[in-house]
Amino acid sequence: MLAARAREVIRRCRLLAECSDEPGCTTRTFLSPVMRVVHSDLAAWMVDLGMIVRVDHAGNLRGVYAASHADAPRLFIGSHLDTVPRAGAFDGVLGVVLGIALIELLNGQRFPFAIEVVGFSEEEGVRFGVPFIGSRAFAGLVDRALLEHRDANGISVKDAIEAYGLDPASIDEAAVNATAVGYLEFHIEQGPVLDSLGIPVGIVDAIVGQTRAEATFGGVAGHAGTTPMASRRDALSGAAEWIGAVEREALAVPGLVATVGRIDADPGVGNVIAGRCSATLDVRHPDDELRTAAAERLAACAREIAGRRGLQVTWTPRLDQPAVAMDTALVAHLERAVRRAGAPVHRLSSGAGHDAMIVASRMPAAMLFVRSPGGISHHPDESVVEEDVAMALEVGRHFLNELS
Amino acid sequence: MLAARAREVIRRCRLLAECSDEPGCTTRTFLSPVMRVVHSDLAAWMVDLGMIVRVDHAGNLRGVYAASHADAPRLFIGSHLDTVPRAGAFDGVLGVVLGIALIELLNGQRFPFAIEVVGFSEEEGVRFGVPFIGSRAFAGLVDRALLEHRDANGISVKDAIEAYGLDPASIDEAAVNATAVGYLEFHIEQGPVLDSLGIPVGIVDAIVGQTRAEATFGGVAGHAGTTPMASRRDALSGAAEWIGAVEREALAVPGLVATVGRIDADPGVGNVIAGRCSATLDVRHPDDELRTAAAERLAACAREIAGRRGLQVTWTPRLDQPAVAMDTALVAHLERAVRRAGAPVHRLSSGAGHDAMIVASRMPAAMLFVRSPGGISHHPDESVVEEDVAMALEVGRHFLNELS
Repeated sequence: MLAARAREVIRRCRLLAECSDEPGCTTRTFLSPVMRVVHSDLAAWMVDLGMIVRVDHAGNLRGVYAASHADAPRLFIGSHLDTVPRAGAFDGVLGVVLGIALIELLNGQRFPFAIEVVGFSEEEGVRFGVPFIGSRAFAGLVDRALLEHRDANGISVKDAIEAYGLDPASIDEAAVNATAVGYLEFHIEQGPVLDSLGIPVGIVDAIVGQTRAEATFGGVAGHAGTTPMASRRDALSGAAEWIGAVEREALAVPGLVATVGRIDADPGVGNVIAGRCSATLDVRHPDDELRTAAAERLAACAREIAGRRGLQVTWTPRLDQPAVAMDTALVAHLERAVRRAGAPVHRLSSGAGHDAMIVASRMPAAMLFVRSPGGISHHPDESVVEEDVAMALEVGRHFLNELS
Repeated sequence: MLAARAREVIRRCRLLAECSDEPGCTTRTFLSPVMRVVHSDLAAWMVDLGMIVRVDHAGNLRGVYAASHADAPRLFIGSHLDTVPRAGAFDGVLGVVLGIALIELLNGQRFPFAIEVVGFSEEEGVRFGVPFIGSRAFAGLVDRALLEHRDANGISVKDAIEAYGLDPASIDEAAVNATAVGYLEFHIEQGPVLDSLGIPVGIVDAIVGQTRAEATFGGVAGHAGTTPMASRRDALSGAAEWIGAVEREALAVPGLVATVGRIDADPGVGNVIAGRCSATLDVRHPDDELRTAAAERLAACAREIAGRRGLQVTWTPRLDQPAVAMDTALVAHLERAVRRAGAPVHRLSSGAGHDAMIVASRMPAAMLFVRSPGGISHHPDESVVEEDVAMALEVGRHFLNELS
């Protein structure tokens, strides 16, 4: 029976993946017109289960499954409904569809807590360059400045909310005011760890902290034919040496990941020595001290390389976001549920940011990762295994029983 | 007296630098409207010296200073009149203005050879992506295919010649049919060698050969937060390692220069591991065997790095141009002239391509480099030293006497 329900979860995710801002792929940004179809499908499934459904003024879809008694506290289960451009069918929406399937699985059973399924309006930061609009509003963290962010067409968050028929002035009402038992988020791993271990689900114990920065090396542009090697101050060669050091640093510190994803050499012509080269840095680790120490070593390394090569270097910090621990008690509940469901217990940290990271500031939060075959995500080939989805449902059922 | 003439040469070059396709800088492309002003100023100076001036059907400006007798052979002195975008005032045009100044210096003295000063229409390859249009026509190397090349506005070489009032069907008449004594080109060094040695002029013994290629590393794009270091197939890290190897190879082989000037990482986003990264290679050496061997080692090195990192690599050859030796006898004449002028004799190879490289296929060719302060070229700060220009004139005078 779980297998059939897992198949249905996958079918629903693939159905919703057809709702896209662009034809031929899956791209859903904050409150784009197609989000109405997503809201309407999900709402229909929830209403069928007797849930009370609304869309709050931050554009979050919220459905409440009543508790066994009045004035009960509330457990939240959710994830996000927006996607990156040309996305897969499971990142985000799986967590919402699984929440609904879990309630269906209860077959009317009630708990001493209500269950609210939340489909956050925005997590990826695609349309406005700021992520987590939905979960920030849910956690009561939206300020007026956020509403003024504008998209590429000059439309503000506020305008977009109004255009969807909602009231940006009432966005504070999106904040949770119920007594919260906690928040559970199902999400695909988006990485290869569970797949390489052959494990269906994983328990997230922390969302790693992130450092982002940009190193810009300044040298002297010159003629590739007439400038002897010894006279060169080649900004791209300096950047390349530093990229090697970034990789060595990450390999040397267990659990550290460090990435240079963007590089720009100027003037960027084959027969001209680069006079300027900038490269991004993204460093993540569950331990903030280890992360910031690694980032500082990499900044020092850039300065050392630049000094030795007669280059200048500018170091521009872009982000220094601490790690967020999941709630110890809720993680322990989740771990027992995984064990009872008969799956191997594996804890891991999330290398990506998630709504749970924002919600954790407001209430106890926990996350269950579902294996991502091949670690593929943010890509149309993103997938899930039916047995893993069934296992996530089974874990969810035990988690609810565990809590009650 | 030479100092005054050198000052006048510099003044004329700076005057011609005001002729530009774009305001506020010096940009002159093949037969652009402003080239008429350049032709007209140069022609006026030549006509004043009794020279017979014409523009051939490849757009080269040509002025003949008669010999002491009829049916004499002809010595050519020239360089190019076009520039790179936002250029300096001396690259190319200095060689033409110096040729005219040299004839002025003769004060009517005649030789048993005529002297033809040539201002080539095109050397830099900016407008049509193909360089040496002027000197190719001069050497009889223009084919119909060259005439069909189109610029960014869809205008062909042929159209541009017609628009200037010339006849592309008669371009073959630009080819030299006189008996040639040889070709002498004065040109700024465009590199730092003479400046670092404190020497005013240098004798070019060869124009180096060039290999150009592109290495494209293919890996797997992935999430910078969720992909452990050990699972990565990071195309940019592979390219960065190879760029380090390119630099080491060039430092290990005396006289070799190797440059990676352009790099493109895809998708080129700070929090995404690059799935693809391409980088250009430019390798130059006066010895073709050493150059091709170095380029082959660098291709093998790219394959080794790719294999070890689980990447693919595509190696795309773009150019394999052999070195061109200057004429032994003419270089010996030039060396004697430098000695008689009282300058230190320093031979060097040219790391950049020049018209002399093309002309050498038709007649004996030699080049004299004039020191480039700071090695700066292809930049508004490009300059020459008055004393060096005077020395070039003195060398030119001795060279003419040596030949006669």
